[in-house]
Amino acid sequence: MPGSTWGHALRLTTFGESHGVALGGIIDGFPAGVTLDLNWVQQQMARRRPGQAWTTPRQEQDQVEVLSGVFEGQTTGTPIALLIRNADQRSQDYAALKDQLRPGHADRSYLKKYGIRDHRGGGRASARETVIRVAAGALAQQYLVEQLGIQIQAGVTQIGSIQAAKCDFSQVSQNPFGFVDAHAIPSITALFEELIAAGDSVGAAICVEATGVPAGLGEPVFDKLDALLAHAWMSINAVKAVAVGDGWDVVSQRGHQHRDALGTAGFLSNHAGGVLGGISTGQTIVGHLAFKPTSSIQLPIDTLDQQGQMTRLQVTGRHDPCVALRALPIVEAMTALTLMDQVLQQRAQNPKAWEQACDAS
Amino acid sequence: MPGSTWGHALRLTTFGESHGVALGGIIDGFPAGVTLDLNWVQQQMARRRPGQAWTTPRQEQDQVEVLSGVFEGQTTGTPIALLIRNADQRSQDYAALKDQLRPGHADRSYLKKYGIRDHRGGGRASARETVIRVAAGALAQQYLVEQLGIQIQAGVTQIGSIQAAKCDFSQVSQNPFGFVDAHAIPSITALFEELIAAGDSVGAAICVEATGVPAGLGEPVFDKLDALLAHAWMSINAVKAVAVGDGWDVVSQRGHQHRDALGTAGFLSNHAGGVLGGISTGQTIVGHLAFKPTSSIQLPIDTLDQQGQMTRLQVTGRHDPCVALRALPIVEAMTALTLMDQVLQQRAQNPKAWEQACDAS
Amino acid sequence: MPGSTWGHALRLTTFGESHGVALGGIIDGFPAGVTLDLNWVQQQMARRRPGQAWTTPRQEQDQVEVLSGVFEGQTTGTPIALLIRNADQRSQDYAALKDQLRPGHADRSYLKKYGIRDHRGGGRASARETVIRVAAGALAQQYLVEQLGIQIQAGVTQIGSIQAAKCDFSQVSQNPFGFVDAHAIPSITALFEELIAAGDSVGAAICVEATGVPAGLGEPVFDKLDALLAHAWMSINAVKAVAVGDGWDVVSQRGHQHRDALGTAGFLSNHAGGVLGGISTGQTIVGHLAFKPTSSIQLPIDTLDQQGQMTRLQVTGRHDPCVALRALPIVEAMTALTLMDQVLQQRAQNPKAWEQACDAS
Amino acid sequence: MPGSTWGHALRLTTFGESHGVALGGIIDGFPAGVTLDLNWVQQQMARRRPGQAWTTPRQEQDQVEVLSGVFEGQTTGTPIALLIRNADQRSQDYAALKDQLRPGHADRSYLKKYGIRDHRGGGRASARETVIRVAAGALAQQYLVEQLGIQIQAGVTQIGSIQAAKCDFSQVSQNPFGFVDAHAIPSITALFEELIAAGDSVGAAICVEATGVPAGLGEPVFDKLDALLAHAWMSINAVKAVAVGDGWDVVSQRGHQHRDALGTAGFLSNHAGGVLGGISTGQTIVGHLAFKPTSSIQLPIDTLDQQGQMTRLQVTGRHDPCVALRALPIVEAMTALTLMDQVLQQRAQNPKAWEQACDAS
Repeated sequence: MPGSTWGHALRLTTFGESHGVALGGIIDGFPAGVTLDLNWVQQQMARRRPGQAWTTPRQEQDQVEVLSGVFEGQTTGTPIALLIRNADQRSQDYAALKDQLRPGHADRSYLKKYGIRDHRGGGRASARETVIRVAAGALAQQYLVEQLGIQIQAGVTQIGSIQAAKCDFSQVSQNPFGFVDAHAIPSITALFEELIAAGDSVGAAICVEATGVPAGLGEPVFDKLDALLAHAWMSINAVKAVAVGDGWDVVSQRGHQHRDALGTAGFLSNHAGGVLGGISTGQTIVGHLAFKPTSSIQLPIDTLDQQGQMTRLQVTGRHDPCVALRALPIVEAMTALTLMDQVLQQRAQNPKAWEQACDAS
Repeated sequence: MPGSTWGHALRLTTFGESHGVALGGIIDGFPAGVTLDLNWVQQQMARRRPGQAWTTPRQEQDQVEVLSGVFEGQTTGTPIALLIRNADQRSQDYAALKDQLRPGHADRSYLKKYGIRDHRGGGRASARETVIRVAAGALAQQYLVEQLGIQIQAGVTQIGSIQAAKCDFSQVSQNPFGFVDAHAIPSITALFEELIAAGDSVGAAICVEATGVPAGLGEPVFDKLDALLAHAWMSINAVKAVAVGDGWDVVSQRGHQHRDALGTAGFLSNHAGGVLGGISTGQTIVGHLAFKPTSSIQLPIDTLDQQGQMTRLQVTGRHDPCVALRALPIVEAMTALTLMDQVLQQRAQNPKAWEQACDAS
Repeated sequence: MPGSTWGHALRLTTFGESHGVALGGIIDGFPAGVTLDLNWVQQQMARRRPGQAWTTPRQEQDQVEVLSGVFEGQTTGTPIALLIRNADQRSQDYAALKDQLRPGHADRSYLKKYGIRDHRGGGRASARETVIRVAAGALAQQYLVEQLGIQIQAGVTQIGSIQAAKCDFSQVSQNPFGFVDAHAIPSITALFEELIAAGDSVGAAICVEATGVPAGLGEPVFDKLDALLAHAWMSINAVKAVAVGDGWDVVSQRGHQHRDALGTAGFLSNHAGGVLGGISTGQTIVGHLAFKPTSSIQLPIDTLDQQGQMTRLQVTGRHDPCVALRALPIVEAMTALTLMDQVLQQRAQNPKAWEQACDAS
Repeated sequence: MPGSTWGHALRLTTFGESHGVALGGIIDGFPAGVTLDLNWVQQQMARRRPGQAWTTPRQEQDQVEVLSGVFEGQTTGTPIALLIRNADQRSQDYAALKDQLRPGHADRSYLKKYGIRDHRGGGRASARETVIRVAAGALAQQYLVEQLGIQIQAGVTQIGSIQAAKCDFSQVSQNPFGFVDAHAIPSITALFEELIAAGDSVGAAICVEATGVPAGLGEPVFDKLDALLAHAWMSINAVKAVAVGDGWDVVSQRGHQHRDALGTAGFLSNHAGGVLGGISTGQTIVGHLAFKPTSSIQLPIDTLDQQGQMTRLQVTGRHDPCVALRALPIVEAMTALTLMDQVLQQRAQNPKAWEQACDAS
């Protein structure tokens, strides 16, 4: 099965390349009769868009056109098609790269997979591909909030060696880095100035939380809720590690430290991150993602051309010093699409238990 | 879609509970005409089996019966069914737990999901469920080795705060901890003695490598090879974090440190872990998994019973001080099933490019 | 995706060959908390079993063993595994056929597909494979009857040129042919005596009806309810044509004859067969299936051996003069599995509309 | 799993309503490096288009825009998105129908399924939805012809009670009815004049053949090749019956008449229609489809409005006297998409046997 589809009961299938005519997607299985706010979709799109402070100046309008599945503002239950035309293709920027395989990018592995490559850009491997995930995810987020009270928010918790001392999601929209701790902003600003001067980039970490998730989502074996989220998160460009709850720290924990005790008012802690045995517990779901530093930086590097000859790559185009900054709405979108898919599946199999879990949450 | 199936072109569907009649699975899509060595399958089973040093003394024969799909030693292309009877159910051990919801386990989330629970044990959430993954994975491993020369090996790289100084997979079978660094064995032994005395447990990290993987496996968007592996690995019991290549370290890296330069003899480093843009590069695939400490330990903990009343849980049964130790063949199995599935899919879509990639590797 | 799985929200995956160790299957996604009557399953099995009047004398106990997913008589929501051991393999009957490719059978196409063949029998292509469909379908039938009041029944409506004058399902269990019209029994009996004397066989038609199906099942495009049923029915051995409602007769109808008018008490006729635009209307679903005559008859026929040399095939083993007779529970089973799958899917996407449709039916 | 997707290894997902903004689809899994002739796609579109003799005068340009997956005339292996804007929506024609539920249409079952309905037309249930199937199918047909020499052609074999005396596919493009027998054209013309005068419609039958199909396509159990084709064909609007080979005639055949003998030069007949045991035999695949008469005719009929009150429906808009005429390219498209999907799947599992079968065909 080719890999451009996400989900089972709610399915998003996407298409489009960074330098092609358009990007788009089809959402199949979305419940009928849901009123959608397309302005909010556009706001999520804006958070992902390049052209903001500290990100690449590439200008994309990213105007989402809804081609089907919505009638007089309400979903009809039929596939919702979303279309975004590429307004600013500037493939001349990439003409110089025509024969060069950029290290850290998918150029070479693409060529090996398909035997052919659209050299004008990253194609499907470009972060631009995620534009449609954000649009589709925004519809899922609206469903989750309005029907179930599930809220999803992501924030940057570490950039390079600068870690947040606390995780305050209300700060995310207050600074250009989407960072969760206001005290770190001056040092991050200094770091970015240094990176731009050096033509370099840096990695970052993102934390995502989903509150109000009823118990019972996820399956006990292959499709554990955290396994599905790991799949969703790792499918985001530049992500190299994902975790739930205490994440990597569990390696050095003792059993009596990790397990969460149960009281009559619920769990006394949340080391598990809201998932036990692959099934949501009713607690907040907590995830973590590690993003690698942008590979296309101005510092030159050795590579090969398509003919296999040595060459030296010197990128001059527009790129981000830290790709993670624009990833916040993507992380939220993939989380929402995954949760909503599981909501529909749980409702299919266990409608009564699901209703009870919703009442309890 | 219910979640007891793994893969698309190669599909494993499993069934069975820890304290039920049997566990088993069906592998559909396995190529015809492949000679299988069932003794080797049994050897992989033995590595996972409880009853070894430092693991729970529960005795399971875990004899795999092949019910279909193999004729005169060769696969026929039809579904291969595997069956393992539960020889040692001892559900009396669990009678005391009938009404208690064990913290750190799926007991409560199961009950919330299904509204019903087989209280004799963890059901599908038990690590015993993985027995059939190991058997099925062993068939996939044989295919990968014999047809393509792909080798998969996993080893324990950290237990609690004891980290391996080097990663030598030849050590894995030489010590009871599956540890990759012989120098750490005395301190690990001391740690285990301390844990057993204290009735406590500890987390651990596992590294897995796949060598000889041709370029071109994986899809550029949702089904990136590393995203599929993240899904596979996170679906293993007790795993709370997964990573590829440099993993979590990328957060503090600079761009010029992370990206792997290309020379005429191939890549000069492997920070990416063998995957770029979701597609295998031809380098060794490197993954990391973090396992939480066993939750069922002898130290008592507060919890609720099925009626929602406070109770105190005191486990007396047989359990592992470190669940990761038995997970090595499970990690190898899930890695093999994922890679083989992608091999079949790449052959379906791009047979010529695949042939070239195999010739080059 | 290999083809041993049926359904999406409710999934049946089967394994096993006619002359292998066992046949079996896994049902994933079955709702939890449903009380199952395994005796009734066994009764459905008995209707399909050879060894009855006018069918092959092969004796199979067909005792279904439930290996998982049921605890204290109730489903647990986890996969239900079913196992049937092959008690009477008698592969010596087939030794003579080792090198012969039986005309009208899958022997040659199997060999071409897989490059290898278990010559002891039809393998997966044997009608014996359907034994597990009947068992799984019986569970789905129980769910449909008890939860929704949906009843499914099939009957033979034509054998050779003998057509039923009326369709009375209460007759089906009253005669050895499962025929819906008692008046035809003497002539059918005479036909069968003639066929057995001649070593020949005959085709037949089956009608299946599902009553009490609420409106709203099925999808408007590829997964139209009638398209899914067509798939399900055509997947039954020996079926060469399938139809809904007026079926093939629509070719010569005029528009004013076919379309069903609507009155305040509902539709005034049911030419559509209970499905419009791929979605159930709330009327009785009516389907028709045409079965070819048994190919393995005592009359000899030219064929090739596995080496491609001419040979003459003379079957001496036990076979049915009319395979359709044993197909009634199989048709019911595939119909039930398809409807139940759609029930779960409709509940996932449109729970309120579904509830209203159930109340109205 | 919602039902707007066809296929597994090759997947077509569609969207769009008859009176919405646009229709479109995404083809995922199409092999890379295939040169496509988009003019030929447009020709297939033209065959389906209304506005021809004897079909509805609705004018649609049906210009297919390729949004992705093709670079410099060649497929890139990434999703191919197709878009067709609705140029001529004329929803005023349907304003009168706003509250009426058209008998013979999906209006009422849609409303029951989703609880909401776009009253401007048939929505997804409109035959207009098939426009994108034709475009996608045309790409599959090109692949099958060029890579494997598989040719697919459909023709009308019966209209009302007028049956073709012979099946000559070269006649299909020579008359406005797509009929396979030139001698019947005068009587069909007379029939159509009568139908138009009477405001009535008529049913029809279509035969489809695929030549050059190698042996080995299809799966032995649920995904038999003929079962997949039955699903594909029954998913076409207005189809009420489908068959392979001798089809419904098998009911009255004897075993010695039906089975196809094998000689050294191959099969001596093709009663099976190119499929045995669900797997292609290497012979021509032969299918039959029965189309019901158009329901929206000028003859009035009783029905209900959306409030459940009796009303009388008098259609005045533009509609076809025989919907089957425009269905020929749709039947070819669905056949091509199904065969190509199976080609990719067979290549995934059994590459050597497939190569041998291709060499032999």
